[in-house]
Amino acid sequence: MSDKFNLFSSPEALTYLLEYLRNPRSVAIVGASPDVRKIGNAVLDNLIESGFEGQIFPVNPSYNEMMGLRCYPSLDHLQKGLDLVVIALPAKAALDVLDQCVRNYSRFVVIIAGGFSETGDEGRALEDQIKAKITGSQTRVVGPNTVGLLFPHSGLNTALTPSDRLFYPGKGSVAFISQSGALGLLVMDSITEYGLGISGFVNIGNRADVTEIDLLSMFADDPNTRSIVMYLESLASGEQFFSKAKEVVSKKPVVLLKTGMSREAAKAASFHTGAMATDDRILNDVLRQAGVIRAYDEVQLLDYGKALAYQPPLRGDRIAVITTAGGVGVLTTDLLTNPQDSIRLRMAGLDEKEQAELKRHVLPIASVSNPIDLTADGSTEAYESILNILTESENVDGIIAYALPQTPKIGIDIVHALKEASRKKPMVVGVIGYRLATKVLIELESVKVPAFPSVRRTTDAMKALYLYGLYRRRLENEH
Amino acid sequence: MSDKFNLFSSPEALTYLLEYLRNPRSVAIVGASPDVRKIGNAVLDNLIESGFEGQIFPVNPSYNEMMGLRCYPSLDHLQKGLDLVVIALPAKAALDVLDQCVRNYSRFVVIIAGGFSETGDEGRALEDQIKAKITGSQTRVVGPNTVGLLFPHSGLNTALTPSDRLFYPGKGSVAFISQSGALGLLVMDSITEYGLGISGFVNIGNRADVTEIDLLSMFADDPNTRSIVMYLESLASGEQFFSKAKEVVSKKPVVLLKTGMSREAAKAASFHTGAMATDDRILNDVLRQAGVIRAYDEVQLLDYGKALAYQPPLRGDRIAVITTAGGVGVLTTDLLTNPQDSIRLRMAGLDEKEQAELKRHVLPIASVSNPIDLTADGSTEAYESILNILTESENVDGIIAYALPQTPKIGIDIVHALKEASRKKPMVVGVIGYRLATKVLIELESVKVPAFPSVRRTTDAMKALYLYGLYRRRLENEH
Repeated sequence: MSDKFNLFSSPEALTYLLEYLRNPRSVAIVGASPDVRKIGNAVLDNLIESGFEGQIFPVNPSYNEMMGLRCYPSLDHLQKGLDLVVIALPAKAALDVLDQCVRNYSRFVVIIAGGFSETGDEGRALEDQIKAKITGSQTRVVGPNTVGLLFPHSGLNTALTPSDRLFYPGKGSVAFISQSGALGLLVMDSITEYGLGISGFVNIGNRADVTEIDLLSMFADDPNTRSIVMYLESLASGEQFFSKAKEVVSKKPVVLLKTGMSREAAKAASFHTGAMATDDRILNDVLRQAGVIRAYDEVQLLDYGKALAYQPPLRGDRIAVITTAGGVGVLTTDLLTNPQDSIRLRMAGLDEKEQAELKRHVLPIASVSNPIDLTADGSTEAYESILNILTESENVDGIIAYALPQTPKIGIDIVHALKEASRKKPMVVGVIGYRLATKVLIELESVKVPAFPSVRRTTDAMKALYLYGLYRRRLENEH
Repeated sequence: MSDKFNLFSSPEALTYLLEYLRNPRSVAIVGASPDVRKIGNAVLDNLIESGFEGQIFPVNPSYNEMMGLRCYPSLDHLQKGLDLVVIALPAKAALDVLDQCVRNYSRFVVIIAGGFSETGDEGRALEDQIKAKITGSQTRVVGPNTVGLLFPHSGLNTALTPSDRLFYPGKGSVAFISQSGALGLLVMDSITEYGLGISGFVNIGNRADVTEIDLLSMFADDPNTRSIVMYLESLASGEQFFSKAKEVVSKKPVVLLKTGMSREAAKAASFHTGAMATDDRILNDVLRQAGVIRAYDEVQLLDYGKALAYQPPLRGDRIAVITTAGGVGVLTTDLLTNPQDSIRLRMAGLDEKEQAELKRHVLPIASVSNPIDLTADGSTEAYESILNILTESENVDGIIAYALPQTPKIGIDIVHALKEASRKKPMVVGVIGYRLATKVLIELESVKVPAFPSVRRTTDAMKALYLYGLYRRRLENEH
């Protein structure tokens, strides 16, 4: 994308414009269809189902009515200046509709079709036509080759997979930018298990126009967004990414899963910048300088996003661990303090007064040195008392609490105790098990306490809070 | 444990004896109780619920009858030579009952109570009494400080957590030895989510008598066991572990999660041998020589156990990846071939003939170079055809297949196609998502295809199959 046709190059214009993408008042779906085998069917259905309160205009010359809505023969028959047009037609047909969008002053156009630059030279020529058509216009394009957008706070879901095959997240505070559509959809389906919501999802696809850099700006200004996670196989521009990310990180945490790092994966993905893309260590250095937290798989990506959205960064590296299962405490200690790990935290050392206080709430056999192991006798009440001591302690920067509902004295009320403590000091929670554990995970999600179903995911999330604290302090010192 | 009182030092005697632990004909529960707050209640209830078909003898002088069974005042009132006695009484009372066990020739005794060596000098003296009492006797002790045993193939569950708080796995082929009771129970609860079964679980606790080395022997000889996974915080004897593990690995894969590796975790766990426990790299070398696969967290431990139980080891490092989601293929490639990872696999290079064959089954936009990306158009039929090509290919050592049921042409019948292919060439399957994905994971588990709910877990499992192949070939060359 060259700056000469980019309206977004003015920050004020950008913020103003992207508001229409995030929260449109009117959406047309060109290629809307009553045929469930057509993508235009799922897109229209998802938009209606997601509770969109603006105007919805199905566009298809073969129908007068669709799903209870009036259907239009073409965009030319609709009001000018629509906020959002979704084109659910094949590549060449989509290009014709794009002309209509431009002449009708549509603000944002989502081109779903593949068959562009990802397929070779012929497709690249088609994609160049997209750029040419919108140059100098008021129309911006998301895609092509995109599964669509999801903005739950606006009741906007233009994704192409029917909701009986895939669950879409509800309102939340994690923004998700994905270059891959399928991976994005699968990850969104996954996170609905415990009810994690998002502030928005955009699949940038081939990013003929709107890039991850524009969207970083958008989510940085979005009051619903508390953290931004990104899946990228290549960077639109390494330099612009670096400076934009650095700016955003001073406001909100940014997490990046960047694939295509191995020579073999490079063959499977595409690259824009030479060195950054081929050398993982160089990318690592650049991201560290920008303050972007790296995730290395799709689970970490959303886990980090969740932890960072729900909890403030750590001010130091001293972690207290509380558990009712001794082995879980030992494993947590190992994973937190592993000397071979690039991010290593410390076990908080509690002073004698604190240890004496702790002793009042546990059986004599329990361990009050860190990790604090209440044993199977541990109760919700004991957790509350101990969490009070830990949140007050000047020796503790963060708390990892295990909520293990399999023992008789831990009830669902543990959720309330954890919620209260998590408002006082950075905390992540681990929950291991199946049925009862899943219930606790869902309850913790509902009160926005970041909780995870394994020791590794719990300790990794704490490391993300630590890293963001480190980056924020460094960025503050630079100013 | 000194050899002079260890009947197990003769391998024949060991195999003979441990059969009584794994498949007892008679079980007495001393301290059985109708009071749901007592451990003896849950133990008796779990034993009855698990469908144990041998004799069950509740022992408690205060009752004549319990849960429909005749209750006995003491072991002295029962037949001699019981196969298994579970003592659900506090430490000192348990010692008295142990005397009764010895004089009545009980074969195995599970001492649940804590309050022994894990609590300090006084407890250590009590634990020494256990050893003294059974020296020269025909009685062997599991524990103390153990949550019990689970042998689903024998309908035997003596665990202490009621089954309404925790799900127990059914019959399977993964054996699980755990030094930590709580961690063991939590992990078992977790794996029931998709229905993974086990061949047995033993929490060795303080291992006053029976150690992980004895149990390695037992599971090595157990026809129901195809892989053995262990959680240990310390080794009973580094030297014995090394030689026994090496012997077992030549028959069955062994996976170890060893905690207490960091200085901080060492404080939380206890250690027996100096160097092995304090230096992670030394342990790594030793385990590699013995052919033991290391897991680094509780999820990996059972994932590796499952993959190794269900699939043969890899004969080489060339992996083919098949997916309907491009991003998932790219990420898989990264995680498989990451040059910074200690275990690095290669992407199989398919020859021109194979690529031409593949092309016949996919859309022109699909990628037939590895990773093979069928795109959202991929169907179960295309999977079947492509899997046939891959299982026949001499360029492919193992297959990672993603079963992603969110697209319209992939149905639950994908499970059958994957099952067939997994019988022909080593395969692991990845399934990402929530509702439909969970169904597919459960179906795949029911036909013993190792499947995992994330890209990382899928690629890690393939690496475990590779490592075991490497170890097996090396052990074979040594002979």
